[in-house]
Amino acid sequence: MHRAAITLDELNALDEPGFVAALDGVFEHAPWVAAGAVRSRPFATVSGLHDGLMRMVRRKQGAELLAFLNAHPVLGGKDAKAGIVTAESAQEQAGIGVVSLAGEEARALAELNAGYLAKFGVPFIICARRHTRPSILRELRARMENSVDQEIANNLAEIEHITRLRLVDRVTGAGMPNVFGRLSTHVLDTHAGRPAQDVKIELFECYPAGKQRLAEAMTNAEGRTDQPLLANAPLRIGTYELVFHMGAYFRARGVIAAAQPFLDEVCVRFGVNEPEGHYHVPLVATPWSYSTYRGS
Amino acid sequence: MHRAAITLDELNALDEPGFVAALDGVFEHAPWVAAGAVRSRPFATVSGLHDGLMRMVRRKQGAELLAFLNAHPVLGGKDAKAGIVTAESAQEQAGIGVVSLAGEEARALAELNAGYLAKFGVPFIICARRHTRPSILRELRARMENSVDQEIANNLAEIEHITRLRLVDRVTGAGMPNVFGRLSTHVLDTHAGRPAQDVKIELFECYPAGKQRLAEAMTNAEGRTDQPLLANAPLRIGTYELVFHMGAYFRARGVIAAAQPFLDEVCVRFGVNEPEGHYHVPLVATPWSYSTYRGS
Amino acid sequence: MHRAAITLDELNALDEPGFVAALDGVFEHAPWVAAGAVRSRPFATVSGLHDGLMRMVRRKQGAELLAFLNAHPVLGGKDAKAGIVTAESAQEQAGIGVVSLAGEEARALAELNAGYLAKFGVPFIICARRHTRPSILRELRARMENSVDQEIANNLAEIEHITRLRLVDRVTGAGMPNVFGRLSTHVLDTHAGRPAQDVKIELFECYPAGKQRLAEAMTNAEGRTDQPLLANAPLRIGTYELVFHMGAYFRARGVIAAAQPFLDEVCVRFGVNEPEGHYHVPLVATPWSYSTYRGS
Amino acid sequence: MHRAAITLDELNALDEPGFVAALDGVFEHAPWVAAGAVRSRPFATVSGLHDGLMRMVRRKQGAELLAFLNAHPVLGGKDAKAGIVTAESAQEQAGIGVVSLAGEEARALAELNAGYLAKFGVPFIICARRHTRPSILRELRARMENSVDQEIANNLAEIEHITRLRLVDRVTGAGMPNVFGRLSTHVLDTHAGRPAQDVKIELFECYPAGKQRLAEAMTNAEGRTDQPLLANAPLRIGTYELVFHMGAYFRARGVIAAAQPFLDEVCVRFGVNEPEGHYHVPLVATPWSYSTYRGS
Repeated sequence: MHRAAITLDELNALDEPGFVAALDGVFEHAPWVAAGAVRSRPFATVSGLHDGLMRMVRRKQGAELLAFLNAHPVLGGKDAKAGIVTAESAQEQAGIGVVSLAGEEARALAELNAGYLAKFGVPFIICARRHTRPSILRELRARMENSVDQEIANNLAEIEHITRLRLVDRVTGAGMPNVFGRLSTHVLDTHAGRPAQDVKIELFECYPAGKQRLAEAMTNAEGRTDQPLLANAPLRIGTYELVFHMGAYFRARGVIAAAQPFLDEVCVRFGVNEPEGHYHVPLVATPWSYSTYRGS
Repeated sequence: MHRAAITLDELNALDEPGFVAALDGVFEHAPWVAAGAVRSRPFATVSGLHDGLMRMVRRKQGAELLAFLNAHPVLGGKDAKAGIVTAESAQEQAGIGVVSLAGEEARALAELNAGYLAKFGVPFIICARRHTRPSILRELRARMENSVDQEIANNLAEIEHITRLRLVDRVTGAGMPNVFGRLSTHVLDTHAGRPAQDVKIELFECYPAGKQRLAEAMTNAEGRTDQPLLANAPLRIGTYELVFHMGAYFRARGVIAAAQPFLDEVCVRFGVNEPEGHYHVPLVATPWSYSTYRGS
Repeated sequence: MHRAAITLDELNALDEPGFVAALDGVFEHAPWVAAGAVRSRPFATVSGLHDGLMRMVRRKQGAELLAFLNAHPVLGGKDAKAGIVTAESAQEQAGIGVVSLAGEEARALAELNAGYLAKFGVPFIICARRHTRPSILRELRARMENSVDQEIANNLAEIEHITRLRLVDRVTGAGMPNVFGRLSTHVLDTHAGRPAQDVKIELFECYPAGKQRLAEAMTNAEGRTDQPLLANAPLRIGTYELVFHMGAYFRARGVIAAAQPFLDEVCVRFGVNEPEGHYHVPLVATPWSYSTYRGS
Repeated sequence: MHRAAITLDELNALDEPGFVAALDGVFEHAPWVAAGAVRSRPFATVSGLHDGLMRMVRRKQGAELLAFLNAHPVLGGKDAKAGIVTAESAQEQAGIGVVSLAGEEARALAELNAGYLAKFGVPFIICARRHTRPSILRELRARMENSVDQEIANNLAEIEHITRLRLVDRVTGAGMPNVFGRLSTHVLDTHAGRPAQDVKIELFECYPAGKQRLAEAMTNAEGRTDQPLLANAPLRIGTYELVFHMGAYFRARGVIAAAQPFLDEVCVRFGVNEPEGHYHVPLVATPWSYSTYRGS
């Protein structure tokens, strides 16, 4: 992924081997996808290019389709550890830590993957960049209940997500697909009737057994953070916590004095279900109350 | 503390040795307190009885006062473990788990206690039934900064809390002092415009390194719990979490379907600073928003 | 209606003429209703008595039913003004001011009534004690669109409401039907974290061309009013306004000083659609924010 | 005021008579103000120009100062009606309708003006463009209680406001003073968890005896109005009402069906006290609840 991005115009102008080479790795072990789409050029948008590539995939049926799906690595499996998957896959899996999973969670994943492969004859495919570990396990468990046809469809839908993200990493140009989500916040102090400045905010990703800090920021004069808390990537489906240090804020302003205030670290736990969505989660607070909502 | 309670009228009617015996253990190793108050009988209220006893204590000065304070055990110290403190003290300390503290926290407490004793010449006294472990450590650290006079006053104020609670355990009658707090909640569903019934609620006491569940309840048709979440005891000064299982509630009502809803386990973290207060912490919620406040 | 109430036990024990006389006026010009229900005695509950009476009405069909319906006065019509309706009807109509309606509204009502009578062959019947003038006009307009069968059913349903209320005025005993609604409020001051005491609250009934004050109250130490704002009667279907004098409250507490505060008279306009319901409409406020909801 | 605006650069370059003529009418009947400031040119900013002009005014004392103040018209007085005031004054007064005031309010204003003139020896001066009629009357009554010195100072402060606004109408260039306020809103639908689109919003200015509609708008896909509700002028100090047609919105979305919903026209009444401020007054609503606050 450390290659320089190529422009859509350049892609449109390449000869066939060049075009196929430029898209190598976007579709897992499947140069025929790019080769098949060569004739459809020029593509007016990057979205259109992705659609053109997916059309090649969706034409496949029967044994060819199964072979294509089976060329995808098992999530967290030996292939990934042994390094015989595409660099793209390895990096995507590393992003959620599945490669380095240890203990019970790794065993659960391995068992579920094996069960899935046994039942459906293809590996469980999921766009890791759109998920957290708990949501991957939940999806795996839920999809085990489906029919083979549903799972062929689900795997293709996930491949669509995976390759769209890879393409966005690789190609720049008009009509980029919408693949990035955004998480922002805003703190209003309704005790004073103005934006709450200098509130420390922490963002965590939650796991059954703990949580991991993703970001920390201070609010500015507008009660907002200078940068969104998450941006330029899909928001991973999962559970998050925003912790607003309101006790410190109100203490610094002389509004409260108690060592143990009613509200200190205000915790807002929420779920993300739309990786490409905009989640605005504001806090409207006094030392004695707060409200929050999915805003815009 | 397993003795039967005695009525105020009975106490007023006892002879002096009986009166002193009946109040044995209320003031730590200090039968002279009850003996001194005998003459002030009859007491019209249990509050008045406690005031009368405290007057005896507050008359002491100098070496006598120091001796009285020094008869109190060190919190979590060897005395408690060796069982040479009053049964009351042992039970009160066990309530917050200080006796069985292990590792770093126990070392911190022991060091702070030793420092306190060295600085002030008397043990650090605190009404354990009004505190959680974090608030005891915080108090201990804060009180280390005070003058000797302030700490004599603070220790006496804590003895007043300790003995008032012990007296309420022991004596029944008119004019009971207000020693109990109450924590209640209420869930309003403003998506449907009615109380939220069958919401599972969990209450936790929070520690720096984790949390302990204190109570679990379901809301009734009024959106309330049949019993207060905490009652009939002081609310321990500390940090708490109410977890409202709103995702399950809205899913059961068919309002949401997503495996990963925006709001699932709504977590309201708040502090208690008034052990004898009434904390009403309601939740007003939709699948996309909630507000909470210190109500009444 | 100034007669003394009779107990259900007394009613059960009366001879037939006495029973019919005791219920005179509950059903408009229809002594046969009570006469028909005599045999069903004893009634265990007042609700059961009302059900028994309505059963007599619901047995009627064809010309008899039409005659019964036609014995009901036209709302605001000449009968009411001429005093040839039951005392009950006259008083109920006076309660919403339809008798003294003047000008355009009276003309609209007269025209609609005439149109209704022409279309359905029976007068428009509505339980005036459950309605405000705007809701009566809205109902009249809406019901004009129905079929004859629907309107026979609607008129009978309204007679059921009318007579249930009259019966509750007349008879006391076990199993009283639920005919009364209740409107209450509660003011929380989340700037200070406690109930807002001494807030002046006004309640208005709203009309297209103005509003009429129904009640005024001050909040007590609990932030509530000593009495519900409305009780012991159906809540009339209609639009209401609660005005909370929050500016005066926060000014009296020294929280705000501006001659023109952000929030002064906070106005909460809401509709009532369930005359027998409990409407709790609280206000949670700071000088810079407020929220309200249908509570419980 | 229908003249074309002049640029600050042009003003700096004019000869003295041209400069004085260009600013004619900014200061009421006082060409000496502009004349006195000629020597301070060039002004780098329009704010600086205004400061320079005000410095000329603030140098005056005693009889000269009184004469200057007395050259200002009485608000709503005969001068305005007779047309012998500056065009600027006439238009400013017309903006709040004081010229056409009739009946009791006009009499109250005339009496208060006369009383003020009698007490202080100068007319009551106020920047009409920053006020509504009720706030002018309130100011007049409040200022009657002050000392002469305070009122000289208050009149000069108002002249500063008046002339700053006139200058902004007349001169464009770098460093424009901040004279405009802004009122905006935002509607969040927390029943559906998204911005509320197509909500009709009305804005009213409130008077003791009624209200006047200032603006009407529909919310866009972001739940905002395409334009601020008020902008490009000072926000007049006074009381306003935002009416959000939430009943129609929720009915159109199929969320509610009742002819008389709990929330229909949600009315948010609020005060404006900072004419140059930004007031953001959002609504967060379900069919059963709403909250609002001074946001940002």
